[in-house]
Amino acid sequence: MNKPVAIAAVAALLLPLTSHAQFAKPEDAIKYRQSVMSLMNTHMGRLGAMVNGRVPYDAKVATDNAAIVAMLSKLPGGAFVAGSDTGLNTRAKADIWKDTAKFTAAYDKMVAEAAKLPAAAGDPATLKTAFGGVAGTCKACHDDFRRD
Amino acid sequence: MNKPVAIAAVAALLLPLTSHAQFAKPEDAIKYRQSVMSLMNTHMGRLGAMVNGRVPYDAKVATDNAAIVAMLSKLPGGAFVAGSDTGLNTRAKADIWKDTAKFTAAYDKMVAEAAKLPAAAGDPATLKTAFGGVAGTCKACHDDFRRD
Repeated sequence: MNKPVAIAAVAALLLPLTSHAQFAKPEDAIKYRQSVMSLMNTHMGRLGAMVNGRVPYDAKVATDNAAIVAMLSKLPGGAFVAGSDTGLNTRAKADIWKDTAKFTAAYDKMVAEAAKLPAAAGDPATLKTAFGGVAGTCKACHDDFRRD
Repeated sequence: MNKPVAIAAVAALLLPLTSHAQFAKPEDAIKYRQSVMSLMNTHMGRLGAMVNGRVPYDAKVATDNAAIVAMLSKLPGGAFVAGSDTGLNTRAKADIWKDTAKFTAAYDKMVAEAAKLPAAAGDPATLKTAFGGVAGTCKACHDDFRRD
């Protein structure tokens, strides 16, 4: 699958969640995003510890964590709802809603990279590459769309 | 698969995550649990809205949400670490650590019920039954092990 097709496929997967991702209040959407990001951080951290040699590589643990990251990656997309640019100390920049196309592209890239993780996690070398791919898309999106 | 076997299988699935679920501080484990529970609440809420007829049943949305609940159900088990009975306004009761066998059995029951959700979600009647099964195990565990 080439990259545009892969991204379109991911976007199609996300659509049903996004369109039904209703939150009673904007704060609920912020809390939801923050919960997902916190879990992403934990599980990326566990993968990173193996990639960086701080803990021994374990194929089963790596694959479990990779599957969790891949699943979590798809969740926050529907939670950047209108009005959720302030509240609960959100670090989301207003640019998310001003340049939605750019944000969506950056987000979809992260989801596409995360989708590669589970198959790559069974080997330390392929895990390292796939982990770097995901981490790069995390950083790119945070650089542009998250307040310091 | 009979029930004890199913529970043992789930416990075996959890083991690798549990044994590697390291948190730098007890507060990190509490924050992790709270994040998972918050997401569970959101996605169970979306299923519940369909089960209770507040929103129209949609097989794809139901199955997506069911898969998320099943995955999330497996996460918090490893986060009830020693010393995480206080902090961050946790509502976890000390009984979790005093009667670990009872807590683990209640937790495993929830995971086993949640594992049935994805296959059941494709039909409104089977979804209703499976949803009730999960919700019952949520309530049972909260009644015994969560502060009001």
